[in-house]
Amino acid sequence: MEKTTVRKIFEAQEKYLDKDVQISGWMRTIRSSKSFGFIELNDGTFFKNIQIVFDESLENFKEITKYQISSAITVQGELKETPEAQQPFEIRAKMIKLEGSSAHDYPLQKKRHSFEYLRTIAHLRPRSNTFYAVFRVRSLAAYAIHKFFQERGFVYVHTPIITGSDAEGAGEMFHVTTLDMENVPLNDEGKVDYSKDFFGRETNLTVSGQLEAEAFALAFRNVYTFGPTFRAENSNTGRHAAEFWMIEPEIAFADLFDATKLAEDMMKYVINYVMENAKEEMEFFNSFIDKELLERLNHVASSKFEYITYTEAIEILKKSKETFQYPVEWGLDLQTEHERYITEKVIKKPVFIIDYPKEIKAFYMRLNDDGKTVAASDMLVPGIGEIIGGSQREERPDILENRMEELKLDKDTYWWYNELRKFGGVKHAGYGLGFERAIMYITGMSNIRDVIPFPRTVKSAEF
Amino acid sequence: MEKTTVRKIFEAQEKYLDKDVQISGWMRTIRSSKSFGFIELNDGTFFKNIQIVFDESLENFKEITKYQISSAITVQGELKETPEAQQPFEIRAKMIKLEGSSAHDYPLQKKRHSFEYLRTIAHLRPRSNTFYAVFRVRSLAAYAIHKFFQERGFVYVHTPIITGSDAEGAGEMFHVTTLDMENVPLNDEGKVDYSKDFFGRETNLTVSGQLEAEAFALAFRNVYTFGPTFRAENSNTGRHAAEFWMIEPEIAFADLFDATKLAEDMMKYVINYVMENAKEEMEFFNSFIDKELLERLNHVASSKFEYITYTEAIEILKKSKETFQYPVEWGLDLQTEHERYITEKVIKKPVFIIDYPKEIKAFYMRLNDDGKTVAASDMLVPGIGEIIGGSQREERPDILENRMEELKLDKDTYWWYNELRKFGGVKHAGYGLGFERAIMYITGMSNIRDVIPFPRTVKSAEF
Repeated sequence: MEKTTVRKIFEAQEKYLDKDVQISGWMRTIRSSKSFGFIELNDGTFFKNIQIVFDESLENFKEITKYQISSAITVQGELKETPEAQQPFEIRAKMIKLEGSSAHDYPLQKKRHSFEYLRTIAHLRPRSNTFYAVFRVRSLAAYAIHKFFQERGFVYVHTPIITGSDAEGAGEMFHVTTLDMENVPLNDEGKVDYSKDFFGRETNLTVSGQLEAEAFALAFRNVYTFGPTFRAENSNTGRHAAEFWMIEPEIAFADLFDATKLAEDMMKYVINYVMENAKEEMEFFNSFIDKELLERLNHVASSKFEYITYTEAIEILKKSKETFQYPVEWGLDLQTEHERYITEKVIKKPVFIIDYPKEIKAFYMRLNDDGKTVAASDMLVPGIGEIIGGSQREERPDILENRMEELKLDKDTYWWYNELRKFGGVKHAGYGLGFERAIMYITGMSNIRDVIPFPRTVKSAEF
Repeated sequence: MEKTTVRKIFEAQEKYLDKDVQISGWMRTIRSSKSFGFIELNDGTFFKNIQIVFDESLENFKEITKYQISSAITVQGELKETPEAQQPFEIRAKMIKLEGSSAHDYPLQKKRHSFEYLRTIAHLRPRSNTFYAVFRVRSLAAYAIHKFFQERGFVYVHTPIITGSDAEGAGEMFHVTTLDMENVPLNDEGKVDYSKDFFGRETNLTVSGQLEAEAFALAFRNVYTFGPTFRAENSNTGRHAAEFWMIEPEIAFADLFDATKLAEDMMKYVINYVMENAKEEMEFFNSFIDKELLERLNHVASSKFEYITYTEAIEILKKSKETFQYPVEWGLDLQTEHERYITEKVIKKPVFIIDYPKEIKAFYMRLNDDGKTVAASDMLVPGIGEIIGGSQREERPDILENRMEELKLDKDTYWWYNELRKFGGVKHAGYGLGFERAIMYITGMSNIRDVIPFPRTVKSAEF
């Protein structure tokens, strides 16, 4: 008999009803009386379990009643409709075979566990409803991003993870080294002798692939990165991880507005793709994690995103009667409370804030004609605040070099980045989306540790 | 006037012929006489250039003749067929506007450059034919891999890059640390005090996501990873990079044969996808890099892959009249020369060698009933030798623990891996494909540095 899967049965039950089917999966629950029993079986292909009914007509009935939760079994039996029950159908078992036993101390018993506890068993938590749903949505969202860009002819670039540059001061970095830590070689000046290190120079883990993506955009026009990035910041919050994935598209012959349009289209595409392909998971999140989730996502997917300038945003915030924890002043960065007030209370849908003061933005952002602001844009969404940061890049060699001198950036490190401006460095723009932020937004999960398979945070690198 | 792209014109020329079009791109070549000139324009969307003809009717004619190669321009003009010329059509310019100038010392002048030289200008080399083709194929192959697995319901898992485990001895690892290298804190025993490090323990860059993928396969059934992996090996060859990407599918309720079938299907899918979606690039490789490339790939895509055991392979090699550099003896690993002899001279198509001696394979591979060999499989392909290594995993807790003791692996590191066997650890299998190896195979490029955007190798981490 050909094997099938729970997904296939749920997606085309008419094909299987009243026929014998064979499936393999893991027991999520089992309960039995003297003469019959029920098993909720999950086979990994579908969010929902399938119900198995078995009785003493099976020669190994007694044995089966002793199987522990999470045992792997193969079941053969007839698929029958169950109009009076909660589930639409069940399998009446004619054969149940043990494929892999489980022990009585399986940690994921039916009772509810805290997310904190489940983090300590990250190798088992995808077997729970919540984490099954989170990680399947994560997979679908990742694919949706590739699909979106590839359908539009973008070239996917694997920018380097190990880097010799220091990340435009975007944050603290992790050193990468093969030097003997107990006996670090020093040079004549008493500094670390990196000429003896693997790469012959000091190297770190990247904080962004943007600069390298720019080089590729000036050859392929439209490119994107999707890879891990790192921050060695000592911030133990629910929104910071030391290792996370980022998507960084970069487009040439394009300005800030083109980049924001792309970001809007991408967000809508990913949300729609996940809602279409993970209906069961999204309904689960809406019921158990965040009751307003689907309403909010539908609203975002159907809204035309708005634009206001940073200067306008500051005016709005100053005029508001809201009490903010952080000060509001032209020249200061917007905090999450400000961002959420604007997108939730004022604009009431997603909004791009553009043209930030140059002092609070990175060196590579294009200086506006006012000489004070740069062509930067942050996408704010209700419920979370900033989710995407982008900018048009400074393509004018002289202005870029001035800016780098102001910020005392090392010219030798960026020689190639400056050369891009010298040889056909046309206007170009791009943005960065923190993938985990997007997954938190789409699932309603509130801690970044709960949307990463095996999270890395301060003092934590288990598994 | 709406802008279009070179790709759109090549793909639907009938729509544009005898009409005005507007495109932007970079000048690959320019030649001019007193009254007219030709520009080969590449706009990044298509491998081939489009020819622009311009003459002194343009008010900026003189200026244009001075534009340097790689300048970015916008051209407006009529698309005309050119039946007598090499190219199918050309644009007769009515307007040419400079979008970004280039300097006279642009390093990619028309003459041929060595790949060695082009590595020193990795920020510019994607503007050359060869590297444009390589990196577009790389992007398409990456997408084909995602598409293949997602269409089959596999869940994409981002396994951790920073790891506390030591990689089953798969190779030398890079340390990841935030400790002050000039002043490494030591504990009472004079060892590095990793409790002061970012993660509170010693951490490295991963060499494989397999073990974590196994945890997810035992929840989702079918999963795959696709991410960067690292080797700190001091081998300066054309086949080794310190940083490369790997694809590692893992399937539950599955044995070695299921994994090899999956590998065969995946290879064929990726090859076909690239050949269909990068016709121009693949023809270029076949003409300029490897004259037998398309024949070889077509052969692989249409062959049914064969199987022989390691023991049979050793017998074949011993009986052959070939002189090998490395010894052939049961218990010794096969070298590339042996692998290529078998797949090219004996089997004459792709072949899986299965059931290797346990001593030359990793601890997690499933022990066969003979007690001497493990359920491992290497896929060999003509022209390269081994391209994929896989195995069925040892799911029996006692046998796995014995093997780990034999190899003196640290039980505390692998507690969770062993637990997977305790709680429904059904039979499962998987394999690893080095992405760069696959790209070298598909493009015919012979140095791994030439298929990675910004390669990291011994003493080299520029850009």
